Amino acid sequence: MRVVVPFDATNPKTRLAPFLGADERDALARRMLGDVLASVDALDATVEVVSTAPVGLDPLFDHVSVTADDRPLDAVVDDAVADTVRRAREPLVVVMADLALATPAALARLVDTEGDVVLVPGRGAGTNALVVRTPAFRTDFHGASFLDHRRAASDVGATVEMVDSFRLSTDVDEPADLVEAFVHGGDRTREWLTARFELDVERGGRVSLARRPGGTD
Amino acid sequence: MRVVVPFDATNPKTRLAPFLGADERDALARRMLGDVLASVDALDATVEVVSTAPVGLDPLFDHVSVTADDRPLDAVVDDAVADTVRRAREPLVVVMADLALATPAALARLVDTEGDVVLVPGRGAGTNALVVRTPAFRTDFHGASFLDHRRAASDVGATVEMVDSFRLSTDVDEPADLVEAFVHGGDRTREWLTARFELDVERGGRVSLARRPGGTD
Repeated sequence: MRVVVPFDATNPKTRLAPFLGADERDALARRMLGDVLASVDALDATVEVVSTAPVGLDPLFDHVSVTADDRPLDAVVDDAVADTVRRAREPLVVVMADLALATPAALARLVDTEGDVVLVPGRGAGTNALVVRTPAFRTDFHGASFLDHRRAASDVGATVEMVDSFRLSTDVDEPADLVEAFVHGGDRTREWLTARFELDVERGGRVSLARRPGGTD
Repeated sequence: MRVVVPFDATNPKTRLAPFLGADERDALARRMLGDVLASVDALDATVEVVSTAPVGLDPLFDHVSVTADDRPLDAVVDDAVADTVRRAREPLVVVMADLALATPAALARLVDTEGDVVLVPGRGAGTNALVVRTPAFRTDFHGASFLDHRRAASDVGATVEMVDSFRLSTDVDEPADLVEAFVHGGDRTREWLTARFELDVERGGRVSLARRPGGTD
């Protein structure tokens, strides 16, 4: 089993601006990547970060290979399907780098789910993670990709399963998502967020994050 | 086992205004309640809707009792804990009426999870569902209720477990949540939404819903 973690090292998390500055978005994206890799580590798998630009990882992840590849995500993943599923006849697992709530248990549920294609929906009909066990499957990560992936799997006669996990369905793209990472996220992400933010409990609305007076810049 | 489904029949889903008019919010809230009851039906449980005002249910749910009780949610649930857990020595399950994505399988995972208190977080650190098996537990549904409930359970020496389910963690409170109900929701909710809305795939942002030209009023 091979796990690919796509990472945008160039201009990560643009939809968190202007809530977070560019340096903050970069730092948070790396914290979330670290938390994802720490959880992926518990799987018995070869792990590869495919980054839009070269990126250094914590020495803890020395065994993880990093490939710089600035092509669109569809091309990267389709090539990985060809390499892994067609040629090596192993399952390919794709886990997005911003799943700050991922845990070993949630990822174990993902890879233990049978099916030619196993999908984890993201918020807004996106796709946050998938397992591909048939070489005929092609990805399309634009727009309502969960629906597109479900259709693409059906079109090639593949069986499709969905994994029901709040932890894996929560990607951190928009300011409102930061609350989930603050409350339920991995250690690296939570440490970074709690140094800078606190919960803001507004009457009648959902809880959000607010800058902590005297918090880390 | 007793399942309580609290329902706001008075002015439901205020945070969906102005995206939906008052009549629409009322209709959608009833559709979601129907989907929740249909999924709850698969559990071997006594089911009760506790509504802020009298509400009629589909004849399909003739076996579900409806109680009108306009007290705050904390008082309603704490009384249900006393009746069910302390007196009848049965587990009490609370499932919010806006969990349009709930399925029998997701609810089965909830009630099969061991623990004195079992929590399902909602978006923004809320609480979407819980199982109470200790009479000492008191609820507090305001603000970051997931954190408060976890603390309240610890304070009385209760074991706490969390259920990791996208379907149960997705409550439909804000316009952005409607996409999840549109894509993954139960039949009643999806039928109502698809007659009025379509997916709006905006470049670079999350997918949202837009009024369908010629859709049902």
